[in-house]
Amino acid sequence: MNRGSGINVGLMGLGVVGGGVASALLRDPSPVSARVGCPVNLRRTLVRDISRPRDVELPPGILTTNAEDILDDPDIDILVEVMGGSDPATDYFRRAISAGKHVVTANKEVMAKDGAELMSLARANRVSLLFEASVGGGIPIVGCLMNELAANDVYSIRTIINGTTNYILTRMAHQRTAFAEALAEAQGLGYAEADPTNDVEGIDAAYKLTVLATLAYGCRFRPEDVYRQGISALEPQDFRYAREFGYSIKSLAIADRDDGGVQLRVYPALVPEENMLANVNGVYNAAEVDGDLCGRVLFHGMGAGRGPTTSAVLGDLIETARMVRDDAVPGGPRELSRGLAVRPIDELHTRYYIRLEVADRAGVLAQIAKALGDCDISIASVLQKDAHAETQSAEIVIMTHPARESSVQQALLEISQLSPVRRVGNMIRIEE
Amino acid sequence: MNRGSGINVGLMGLGVVGGGVASALLRDPSPVSARVGCPVNLRRTLVRDISRPRDVELPPGILTTNAEDILDDPDIDILVEVMGGSDPATDYFRRAISAGKHVVTANKEVMAKDGAELMSLARANRVSLLFEASVGGGIPIVGCLMNELAANDVYSIRTIINGTTNYILTRMAHQRTAFAEALAEAQGLGYAEADPTNDVEGIDAAYKLTVLATLAYGCRFRPEDVYRQGISALEPQDFRYAREFGYSIKSLAIADRDDGGVQLRVYPALVPEENMLANVNGVYNAAEVDGDLCGRVLFHGMGAGRGPTTSAVLGDLIETARMVRDDAVPGGPRELSRGLAVRPIDELHTRYYIRLEVADRAGVLAQIAKALGDCDISIASVLQKDAHAETQSAEIVIMTHPARESSVQQALLEISQLSPVRRVGNMIRIEE
Repeated sequence: MNRGSGINVGLMGLGVVGGGVASALLRDPSPVSARVGCPVNLRRTLVRDISRPRDVELPPGILTTNAEDILDDPDIDILVEVMGGSDPATDYFRRAISAGKHVVTANKEVMAKDGAELMSLARANRVSLLFEASVGGGIPIVGCLMNELAANDVYSIRTIINGTTNYILTRMAHQRTAFAEALAEAQGLGYAEADPTNDVEGIDAAYKLTVLATLAYGCRFRPEDVYRQGISALEPQDFRYAREFGYSIKSLAIADRDDGGVQLRVYPALVPEENMLANVNGVYNAAEVDGDLCGRVLFHGMGAGRGPTTSAVLGDLIETARMVRDDAVPGGPRELSRGLAVRPIDELHTRYYIRLEVADRAGVLAQIAKALGDCDISIASVLQKDAHAETQSAEIVIMTHPARESSVQQALLEISQLSPVRRVGNMIRIEE
Repeated sequence: MNRGSGINVGLMGLGVVGGGVASALLRDPSPVSARVGCPVNLRRTLVRDISRPRDVELPPGILTTNAEDILDDPDIDILVEVMGGSDPATDYFRRAISAGKHVVTANKEVMAKDGAELMSLARANRVSLLFEASVGGGIPIVGCLMNELAANDVYSIRTIINGTTNYILTRMAHQRTAFAEALAEAQGLGYAEADPTNDVEGIDAAYKLTVLATLAYGCRFRPEDVYRQGISALEPQDFRYAREFGYSIKSLAIADRDDGGVQLRVYPALVPEENMLANVNGVYNAAEVDGDLCGRVLFHGMGAGRGPTTSAVLGDLIETARMVRDDAVPGGPRELSRGLAVRPIDELHTRYYIRLEVADRAGVLAQIAKALGDCDISIASVLQKDAHAETQSAEIVIMTHPARESSVQQALLEISQLSPVRRVGNMIRIEE
């Protein structure tokens, strides 16, 4: 292929990140071209609405609403996709890869749902498929699992990979605000969408965890394999009690492995204050990989926003363009093969924080302790507060010793049926 | 090339890391072969003394004391070097690359002194030269600067990249031991060599910083470009005073850039306790990259030892072997081109900690303050302690506002000549 005129990029999506990618490619001198050592041109950009005003100045004729203008253009070497959503992106990727185009994407949903198939397709077509921006923005965790840390048997990946929930939890912890108030504030600042479901219910984090686990364990996982619990049930007193016990509350996305298989889970957890993950605040993200050789490696940085996500997309684009420049073909990641079982959440074995609202009368704690004991759960510490004198109710907070999730669920069911127990306020898992 | 019999590796060095690499290649099933998807064989291993007992069991005939058995063997695809030192390693690399072999190395000295030349040679020969293990062991900072973060204009890289000095400083800070004692302890644990010069004088860190800066700025730097100061002049009271002001003392290796060029420096510095780098303890390493797009990204992990360094070497080996498997050629990092000036330490502009031993009499502080003022240095805070009543001497600790290094050096010269000043105890730069 004659590279006299450089390498051509087709960009799909011109929102926050697409604008960042486009302006880096159009700047003179372009930081991308400078690093690749030959011109990397923005040839076409797919948008929904050509007439919409943009914050980046584009040469005439570059915008199109027709994906075929990119997919069918034989002069486009690399497809960069930053529009999001799995439909029609997955189909576009299949077509681009089959046509011999390299793909760079920020699309966690596509990679979580169909990443394994697309990686195989890319290998068969000897093109590259890179997706650093799909998880953790400025944190280079995807590439590191694929390459630098690839030799490790990974024990666990423990992450904070949703900036929106981490911002909300940080506000709830530091300003003692309620969930709804912190969410509204995050929406006002543009950190949360009008419909925040994807973020606060852990759907976004589950996509990202699926991508990371697939790379770390060399095995295909699906978003449905992730146990998922959102943050909307957390109440201000949970943060207060957590702090009294020396913990922060963080929404963690965790993959870990034992002889029985891999467990994937996204939920709010109590994290000891001395743990680095407890000190990841605001919209920051973090990932801790624990491997047999590398030990614990922690990454900390900004997980979203124009700059960090553009950094990840352009890093992949530069790597891909260098291959095109040298007529190189990618070596590709390992083939996904090892079949590992997904362990259900029932098999989780950890410590638990349990908050109960009870009638303030003698013997209540004994009844609760007995219900726990009957389910083989032993109590590590208890905190009792006369929270509401006027209703004669109290709050009991219990920290358990390590117990099995199925036992805890059973015990909570029984406890909720005890007559002095008004409500199970919350159950939060502890991740040491 | 027929890959029926797999990919062949020649290993140079069978010490702590070499043993880790060899045992991973010889294990059945081998984690390397499993990840590459075809056999990756250890064909030959260069050692100094064949008869020495090893902690890894080797097949017969694999050991050699003759480098030619690796360099001249056309069936060896990849040279893995973990013996250290620039002579004869640099020469071996030139010969291996020219013969079309890929190279994986942990050699910071070679990469710092001749990395730019070797990278060019590798590109010209269309082979890969990877050196993740040369800096930061388990921390994947080298690959990230080359790829994932490549799009960024890097403002600064601030690192703790020598585990030995960080261990010593952590002991001095937490156990209040003197330097000599902490060093002896590190030697007893195998963290420091019998001759600790390379570590405690910052030579090792300067090599590593040279490698990182060359990648981050796309410009060739040399170890001589690094301003270097060791940790042996630190005294227990420096740690005490630092803590009183809210700082830790850490040996940092820093590259930063402004319009005047790049400044490279290795020295003990005061770091605010709330900064993540202040909380990197023991033999851990950390690196913080500040880029125009990614913002601040922090890496934290183990910097040395068999596991982490083997993790880095094997990660590079797997990446290289995947290329060999697919008959791929590497796209390679950017060509080094941009000529950036190296700014001398005289031009540093920061805050300073100055500790003086003075005669305990009236008017001393006024004289010192005047000397500082004459050099355009303003004082942010002062601490005066009657340290030695019997000798009628006191200690004065001054924290300055931002000042120029050359002015501070001039002021210290003048202050040291004031008659009540017995000694300039220490001057430590502050890195906020």
